[in-house]
Amino acid sequence: MTKMIDFQTDPSKYRHWKVEYDGDVANLYMDVDEKGGLFDGYELKLNSYDLGVDIELADVVQRMRFEHPEVKVVVMQSGKENVFCAGANIRMLGGAAHSHKVNFCKFTNETRNTFEAAEEDSGQKYIAAVKGACAGGGYELALACNYIMLTDDSTSSVALPEVPLLAVLPGTGGLTRVTDKRKVRRDRADIFCSTEEGVKGKKALDWHLVDEVVANSKFDDAVKERAKEFAANSKKADVKEGIKLGPLDRKIADDGSVTYSLVEVQVDRAGRKATITLHGPEEDAPADMAAFTAKGDQAYMLKLARELDDAILHLRLNEMEVGLLAFRTQGDPEKFAAHEALLLNNADHWLANETLKYWKRVLKRVDVTSRSLIALVEHGSCFTGVLAELLFAVDRSYMMEDEFEGDNRPIATVTLTDANFGPFPMGNDLTRLQTRFLGDADALKKAEEHKGEALEAEEADELGLVTMILDDIDWEDEIRIFMEERASFSPDAMTGMEANLRFAGPETMETRIFGRLTAWQNWIFNRPNAVGSEGALQRYGTGVRGNYNMERV
Amino acid sequence: MTKMIDFQTDPSKYRHWKVEYDGDVANLYMDVDEKGGLFDGYELKLNSYDLGVDIELADVVQRMRFEHPEVKVVVMQSGKENVFCAGANIRMLGGAAHSHKVNFCKFTNETRNTFEAAEEDSGQKYIAAVKGACAGGGYELALACNYIMLTDDSTSSVALPEVPLLAVLPGTGGLTRVTDKRKVRRDRADIFCSTEEGVKGKKALDWHLVDEVVANSKFDDAVKERAKEFAANSKKADVKEGIKLGPLDRKIADDGSVTYSLVEVQVDRAGRKATITLHGPEEDAPADMAAFTAKGDQAYMLKLARELDDAILHLRLNEMEVGLLAFRTQGDPEKFAAHEALLLNNADHWLANETLKYWKRVLKRVDVTSRSLIALVEHGSCFTGVLAELLFAVDRSYMMEDEFEGDNRPIATVTLTDANFGPFPMGNDLTRLQTRFLGDADALKKAEEHKGEALEAEEADELGLVTMILDDIDWEDEIRIFMEERASFSPDAMTGMEANLRFAGPETMETRIFGRLTAWQNWIFNRPNAVGSEGALQRYGTGVRGNYNMERV
Repeated sequence: MTKMIDFQTDPSKYRHWKVEYDGDVANLYMDVDEKGGLFDGYELKLNSYDLGVDIELADVVQRMRFEHPEVKVVVMQSGKENVFCAGANIRMLGGAAHSHKVNFCKFTNETRNTFEAAEEDSGQKYIAAVKGACAGGGYELALACNYIMLTDDSTSSVALPEVPLLAVLPGTGGLTRVTDKRKVRRDRADIFCSTEEGVKGKKALDWHLVDEVVANSKFDDAVKERAKEFAANSKKADVKEGIKLGPLDRKIADDGSVTYSLVEVQVDRAGRKATITLHGPEEDAPADMAAFTAKGDQAYMLKLARELDDAILHLRLNEMEVGLLAFRTQGDPEKFAAHEALLLNNADHWLANETLKYWKRVLKRVDVTSRSLIALVEHGSCFTGVLAELLFAVDRSYMMEDEFEGDNRPIATVTLTDANFGPFPMGNDLTRLQTRFLGDADALKKAEEHKGEALEAEEADELGLVTMILDDIDWEDEIRIFMEERASFSPDAMTGMEANLRFAGPETMETRIFGRLTAWQNWIFNRPNAVGSEGALQRYGTGVRGNYNMERV
Repeated sequence: MTKMIDFQTDPSKYRHWKVEYDGDVANLYMDVDEKGGLFDGYELKLNSYDLGVDIELADVVQRMRFEHPEVKVVVMQSGKENVFCAGANIRMLGGAAHSHKVNFCKFTNETRNTFEAAEEDSGQKYIAAVKGACAGGGYELALACNYIMLTDDSTSSVALPEVPLLAVLPGTGGLTRVTDKRKVRRDRADIFCSTEEGVKGKKALDWHLVDEVVANSKFDDAVKERAKEFAANSKKADVKEGIKLGPLDRKIADDGSVTYSLVEVQVDRAGRKATITLHGPEEDAPADMAAFTAKGDQAYMLKLARELDDAILHLRLNEMEVGLLAFRTQGDPEKFAAHEALLLNNADHWLANETLKYWKRVLKRVDVTSRSLIALVEHGSCFTGVLAELLFAVDRSYMMEDEFEGDNRPIATVTLTDANFGPFPMGNDLTRLQTRFLGDADALKKAEEHKGEALEAEEADELGLVTMILDDIDWEDEIRIFMEERASFSPDAMTGMEANLRFAGPETMETRIFGRLTAWQNWIFNRPNAVGSEGALQRYGTGVRGNYNMERV
C-alpha cells in the first residue's frame, strides 16, 4: 500500500456515494462500487468500505456545509437492496499494515464526528434510514447520525459483530456511542456487542439502539415524513445558496514536499520531519461578509483552512516516517487579525459560521495527529488568534527573542484575540488555553487581559504562551538538537505519550473515542489473536474460527 | 514465571519495606533487597521494584488504615543512600510475559491509588521525601503521594525517563498525574517526559513537579517539621488503637480452587471459568461498633471483604486462562443487611469507615478486573446492599425466576439498601446504579423507591436491576451456552470491549489511568520497538539504543 492517497475529490469523481437534493432535505445514498477499492486485493462487497469510500463521504459532508447550506436534514441510506452497510472491509483490514489500519480508523472517526458536528454547529441533522443488514462499521455510521430509523422485517437488524466474529473492537466510536450517546444499559450493551446476528425490531427500540422501528411497507414514507418534520422544526436559518468548493491549488514534489497557495509543506524524509508554513493574507480583509461570500472558496480564511487540512491528512497517510511537524507562519499579524475579525464579528452569518467551525475541525485534526508537533515563532510570523491556537495545539513552541543578525523581518510576536477564548474548543470541550492552564485560572485571566497586544518573546514567555524563547545564539542549535533527539525516539512511545499529555482535564465522548477506544483497538490490532496468521482477521471467511491464545490480559 | 503469587504477607515477612511509628507520623522506608526478587533472572538494584515489592507496599498501606489509625501522616522515603527509587525493574519487565506485565502494572496502579484514597477516605496523608534519584516508577510513587519534598543537591532529581530510555510510557499513572494532578503545563510535561536526566531544584518546583525544594543540610528537619505540621492540622479524628489483621484462613487445591471461611472459589480450568461464592453471615450482626471492634478481623463484613479481595487478586495473576468469573451468594439477605447497616449507621466510627472504604476499594478492583464478570442470582442468595453492587459491577447478571424443581432454598431476591446509592462510587465517581442508568434519571429514582424491598425476579427485571431472569426450564442451558460461547471469544477483544463498556459517562484521573494510559501502555508493550529482540527493553543496559521501526502510527 504505497501509492499516494489523495484526500481531495469532488462529486464528479464519486464512485460510492450519490446525493439527491430535495429542498431542505438531502438524500445520501451509499452504493459502494465493489471494484472501486483504493488498493488491490479486495472487493468492496455488501457496501463495505475502505479509506477511499470514507474520503468521498468526508467530501460529501463538507460540501453539504458549504455548497448546500439550504439542507437541514440529511437522510443516509443504502443504494443497495438488503444491506445498509457491512462496515469496514475485512480483507482490506486483514491485508493492511498496522499504521494504515490505525490512520484509516482515525480518519473514519473524524468523519463520523462531522455528522454530529453538522447538527451541533450548523443545524444539519443526520438521519440513518436503515434497511437491510447494518453491521459493524455500518451501524457505527448509523450511530454517528442523530436519529436512527430501522425497518421492521426479518433481515434488517443492527449489529456490532466485531468481537465475536473478528476478535477486534467496534473501533469507529461504536462501543463509546452505544454507552455514552445511545445510553444503552451496559449489560445490554455487553449482549449486543457479543451477538453476531445483532438485534432487530422492537428489542432494538427498547434497548435504545434505534429511535424508531417502522413496518417495512411504511418505511420509505415514514422516513420522508420524519425528514420533512425535522426540517420544518429545524432552527437552522434559511440560506438560499452556498459557495462552490473548487479544487485546491496544490503541487506535490518528488521529495514529498507540497506547495499550496497559502501553505507550504517542506518534507525532510532523512530528518523525519516536515515544516508547514502558513502564509498570512496578502490583501486586506473583505469589507463585509457579502464581499467574503463573493470570494467564495478563494476567501483567505477558508482557503487557508482547506489547505492546512489537506496538508495534515496528506502527511498522516503518505509520509508515515515523518515523525515531527513544525508549524511556522509568515505574514502581517494585524492583517491576519482583520481577516479573522470579520468572521468573529459576523459569527451569525452562515458562511462566517461555517468557516469558523471548519477551523474548529481542522484544529481538532491537528490535536489528534500522532506526530510530534512543534511551532516555531520566528520573526515575520503572524501567530495571531486562530493561528495562535496552533501554539497551544502543539507539544512545544519555540520563539525568537530579540533581533537576529541579518534578519530584518519584523520582530516575532504572538497576539491573542477572541479566537483564543471560546470559539475553537478542543475535543475535551475546553479551549486550548484552558487545557494549557488547567488549574491555574489566574494565568488564563492574565492572558486574556493582554488580548489584542502584539506580545514579544519575553512577555509571551512570562504569560506562559510559549515553551521556550531563544536568542540568535541559541535558536538554531537548540532546535536542531531537539529535532534530532526527537527523531531518535521510538515512534510508538511518542504516540502514547502525546495521546496522554495533550488531553488533560475532562473527557468527552470524542476524547474517549480517540483516547480510550482507539488505544484498546490499536492494542488489539497488534495481537496475534486478531492479526496473526491464525488470527480472526486472516481466517475470516474460511469458516474456521481464529486460534486464540486464551490468556487473559 | 509460573510459581504461585501470594498477595498475603505481613510485616514479619517484609524484605523491602520498614515502617517506624512515631505517634501520629509513620516513617515508611523503601529499602529493597536486591536478592529478593519474586522471580529469578534479575536483581532489584537501586530500589527498583517488582510485583513482590509492591505486594508488601500494598500490605503496608492496608495495615496503616486498620492497624494504625493513629497515623495521620505517612512519610515515604528511601532507606538507601543516593537513590529514592529507580522504578520498576527493567530486566524483570524485559523478561516478563505480556500478561504478567499488564497485571503487574494494574496492581501497582491500584496500590498507588490507595495512597490518595488514604487521605481522601481516612485523612492519612502521604508525603514523599525525595533524596537521590527518583526516576520512572520511583517518581510515580512520589506522584501518588499528596505532597512531594525534594532535596536540593546535585544528584537529586525527579524524572520520567521511560520514553527516551525504554520506549515505553510512565504507565503507573505518571503521565496522567503530571497533567491532571500536578497540573504541569503540557509543553513542560512534554519536555519533562522526554528528558532522561529529569528536572531538579527550583525548576522542579516552578514546574509543579514537586511541592517544596529544601537545601540538603536542612532536608531531614524540614521533612519532620512538615510531617508534624500536617499531622497537627489533620482533620482525622484521634484513634488510639487499631485492630490486627491476622492471616487469612485459606486453602488452595491442586485444581486451583480456593476455600476461605466465607468465600469459595471453584476453578474450572478446562471451562476457563471460576465461580466465586460469597456466604452470608451465620451469626447476627454485632450489637454496636464496640462489639464489631472486639471481633477485629473476624468481624463478618471485614473478613468477607478481605477474602474477596484476595480471591480476585489470586485469580488475576495465578489463573491467567480463566476468562470468566461468576459471582454467587448464599445466605440470609436480612441478616446480611443488618451487618451492613451497622456500618452504614456508624459511618463516622473509624473502623466502620475503614471497613466501608475497603469495600469501596474491593469493588473498584472488581470493576477493573479484565475478565468477563457475571452474577448468578440463585435461590437462597443474598444480593443485598454492597453485595448487590456486584450485580452492577458485572457485565451481565442472571436471576432465577419462580420455583425450581427440587430446590427448596428461599426464592431468589435482590435488595437495594443505602449502600447502592452513594457510599461505593466507581472510579468514574458515579455509583454503579448511576452508571447503569446513565441518562435515565427516572429508572434510578424508581429503583431508590424500592429500597429495602426483597425484589423477586420479575420486579428486579422490571426495575432494570438484572440482565435476564430465567425459569427452571431455561436456567441451566442458557447459562451454559453463554459461558461456552464467551470462553470461545478472543480474550483480547473481550478485555477491550469490557474496558470500554464498563465505564460510561464521566472520566476521572483514575479512569483515565486505567482506560487511556493503560491502554496505550499495553499497546506499546506489544510493539517490537519496546519488546522486540532489538527493542529498548531488551537492549537496556547494553549501551546500544533500540533499533526502531520509525513509522508513526
